[in-house]
Amino acid sequence: MGRWQPDSRGRLQQAALALYSERGFDQTTAAQIADRAGLTERTFFRHFADKREVLFGGSALLKERIVTAVADAPATEGPLDAVSSGLAAAAAMLGEGRRDTSRQRQGVIEASPELRERELAKLADYAAAVAAALRERGVREPQSTLAAEAGMTVLRVSIQRWASGDDGRDLTVIMRDSVAELRVVAASG
Amino acid sequence: MGRWQPDSRGRLQQAALALYSERGFDQTTAAQIADRAGLTERTFFRHFADKREVLFGGSALLKERIVTAVADAPATEGPLDAVSSGLAAAAAMLGEGRRDTSRQRQGVIEASPELRERELAKLADYAAAVAAALRERGVREPQSTLAAEAGMTVLRVSIQRWASGDDGRDLTVIMRDSVAELRVVAASG
Repeated sequence: MGRWQPDSRGRLQQAALALYSERGFDQTTAAQIADRAGLTERTFFRHFADKREVLFGGSALLKERIVTAVADAPATEGPLDAVSSGLAAAAAMLGEGRRDTSRQRQGVIEASPELRERELAKLADYAAAVAAALRERGVREPQSTLAAEAGMTVLRVSIQRWASGDDGRDLTVIMRDSVAELRVVAASG
Repeated sequence: MGRWQPDSRGRLQQAALALYSERGFDQTTAAQIADRAGLTERTFFRHFADKREVLFGGSALLKERIVTAVADAPATEGPLDAVSSGLAAAAAMLGEGRRDTSRQRQGVIEASPELRERELAKLADYAAAVAAALRERGVREPQSTLAAEAGMTVLRVSIQRWASGDDGRDLTVIMRDSVAELRVVAASG
């Protein structure tokens, strides 16, 4: 990895998000991203398979963190507590990133029907994996699917609140608070 | 509407679902559907804009029924009870249809990534509309979004249970039962 500058991946990501925001995702090419980052197109493709991967590259790792945390939660924890452990793991990973980068990413995805569908498919894939992990813990259907899907809604809503900057608290705190809100809703009329 | 046979829409729908199941959605043409139904391609396009509309044609009406029921729920009802009213309206509309037709539709959608994404986008659109209706009722965020999204998960899970035939009860009963399961999950650890 020594041939390119250590932070080229980060520079490419920043350049891509800036261009997607300015011109739109469809109107941006890999060559333009590389150019803005002061790198070559070849370097871009060393780091990312395509333009979409700049936005979804961390997805597999995040899913693994969530599912592992759900599976490893104490056996005494019920389904929603186990899911909350998964959300805490997600918050720990995502919370390391910059809030403004996350806000920019959200804006880019919201602006494109194709990217919105991809984001929904990603969350549905997480939910299916979490539901499977819950069934492994002995949670039956439909509770496992309901808990997993509700958890992924909490994830999405919490990231939006965090990224928007309207809620200045840490992502971990917002996530915990959203789970509490879900419990209030479900206990309500 | 007198020019074509009264049940041509239904015949086209049946023919389309049968062909999508047998050959796959992508491999089926409008001409083949019309042929199987004993009708012309022109008749197909009088009833449906394209092949996808056979699967998603009732979508706008279903959304309207759900949102209206949420909006019209007694003011004393909390967010999840209002959402449950919307689900009851959905169950009343969908429950009129045939269970085996619904199962066939589910199978076709599951088999195609493009159709799965479309189905997810449809449910996300319903959820956004239901959340807006809840905010109109004075429910604040994130409770309105959490209740709406959880409700659409209940809708999806219930339709799957009903269509699978594993659960022989009416869709209305399954839907009510799934809301109760959601409450159990949220009240659990």
